[in-house]
Amino acid sequence: MADITAILQQYATKFNKDLEIYFPKAEDKEHRAFNAMHYSLMNGGKRLRPFLLHETAALFGVPYDTAFPVAASLEMLHTYSLIHDDLPSMDNDDFRRGFPTCHKAYDEATAILAGDGLLTYAFEVLNTSPISDSKKVELTLLLARAAGAYDGMVAGQVLDLYTDTHQEFAHPEEVIKHTEEMKTGRLLRYPCEAGAVLGNATADERNTLIKFSRNLGIAFQITDDILDVVGDEKVVGKTLKKDKAQAKLNFVSIYGVDKAKAFATDLINEAESLIDTFGAKADNLKMLSRYFLTRNH
Amino acid sequence: MADITAILQQYATKFNKDLEIYFPKAEDKEHRAFNAMHYSLMNGGKRLRPFLLHETAALFGVPYDTAFPVAASLEMLHTYSLIHDDLPSMDNDDFRRGFPTCHKAYDEATAILAGDGLLTYAFEVLNTSPISDSKKVELTLLLARAAGAYDGMVAGQVLDLYTDTHQEFAHPEEVIKHTEEMKTGRLLRYPCEAGAVLGNATADERNTLIKFSRNLGIAFQITDDILDVVGDEKVVGKTLKKDKAQAKLNFVSIYGVDKAKAFATDLINEAESLIDTFGAKADNLKMLSRYFLTRNH
Repeated sequence: MADITAILQQYATKFNKDLEIYFPKAEDKEHRAFNAMHYSLMNGGKRLRPFLLHETAALFGVPYDTAFPVAASLEMLHTYSLIHDDLPSMDNDDFRRGFPTCHKAYDEATAILAGDGLLTYAFEVLNTSPISDSKKVELTLLLARAAGAYDGMVAGQVLDLYTDTHQEFAHPEEVIKHTEEMKTGRLLRYPCEAGAVLGNATADERNTLIKFSRNLGIAFQITDDILDVVGDEKVVGKTLKKDKAQAKLNFVSIYGVDKAKAFATDLINEAESLIDTFGAKADNLKMLSRYFLTRNH
Repeated sequence: MADITAILQQYATKFNKDLEIYFPKAEDKEHRAFNAMHYSLMNGGKRLRPFLLHETAALFGVPYDTAFPVAASLEMLHTYSLIHDDLPSMDNDDFRRGFPTCHKAYDEATAILAGDGLLTYAFEVLNTSPISDSKKVELTLLLARAAGAYDGMVAGQVLDLYTDTHQEFAHPEEVIKHTEEMKTGRLLRYPCEAGAVLGNATADERNTLIKFSRNLGIAFQITDDILDVVGDEKVVGKTLKKDKAQAKLNFVSIYGVDKAKAFATDLINEAESLIDTFGAKADNLKMLSRYFLTRNH
């Protein structure tokens, strides 16, 4: 069996090289935020979301280059959310992937502007894709809604900040599920849906991929929560044990490590069988979902 | 002669009412940022940019409703920039239009997320406009570039923060012009260009409107700088004399009030004659540009 970490690394190397086209050398003072965007974007991310998008699109024979600007814009949007989440008034993190966070490497104002710039650039880059205008519009709407404040990523971050300090819920597991579905899930669902749009998938195929992404999203978050408890700070590349220090509500604090792990395993098993219908073309996606369970960083 | 302040007020009343369709009642905890977006968006803005867009589009007979989502998305994007500019790590303003700024009415994390949410929502709303997909794509690209970190609004804000503390320039007036062209000018140029796109303007007509907007932008900024020195805090609705306190580089600090005012007057006279070609349909635009010079808040 192929090694998914090697495949991911190879993908990230190519993807990172291609990303550089969006960052021409910019040395004037006015490009401080632009350069901070580049700093955070190139800060060692695993490129899981772009990979997911490219692999989903590939199920339908969409070439790498066609999907690339769509994948790049997603990674930009994801990176903006990390920069802002790390800010002192939010999660207050000094390190991300082993490097100083944006506001530590630059300063707070620049980090806010770099996040703003990446979010804005994401919509620009997406709309330069070599695809039809109607697909650009559909993907722009999907991405904006996935990232939005009504029931998207921003709403998830609001609820996450809220559950940090308010733990008295009758059904905490429902609150967590809902939070994570918005905060993490929407940006994992988007690449699967975008791949389906790019590939002119049928409604059935699209729904299958949405279900697949939903399982992936919850399993991803559970693994994150587990890593926070049992992970190695040097390998994970960020401050751990924060959830416990903040008495944070999450899957592990409710169910414990073992039960949470079993739950995630069930979700990934189901995810794999969901995409059986795509045959051998789905092998990378299956390996990826298994990796969501076993990753150590 | 009609009274432009009455026309603007009438426009703002209708525009504000129509904006409410984008803000359904949202009382769950997760909608804290969504409600903060609404708070800041409805915080008494004069709606100059949407008006400029609607009036420019009207030169070509584009109906109000067709241009409305485009105008609404612009005002959302403008409001996001105000929320983030007001943050403690940026301009640190407690009041805006006489009301507490977003981070004062809510908190810093919510204000950052509300800005993010408005920026995201702007691209969503723009792409729900009742116009062709190719126009949506063109306007999305124009808006993203106008607001961007490379040579758009975010780059202007970077340079503005920078010139707050670094005043040793050989040609300070060039630095200011360049800063303001990005920080303020790009979002005043966009509505004029968007109106031209919506109205299927010729290349010549579009260029005329771009020149018109350029003069407007500089005059707008000069008036802002003058108001900071001679304005009435209660009327302007924000803390004044800040530029001097921060030894800030601007048109007035370089040229003095009288020379700056004369420069702005020349720009507006030229702007008016530029749009003579549109005849009586441009009357509101002419009154608006005169207002840019005479406004007291």
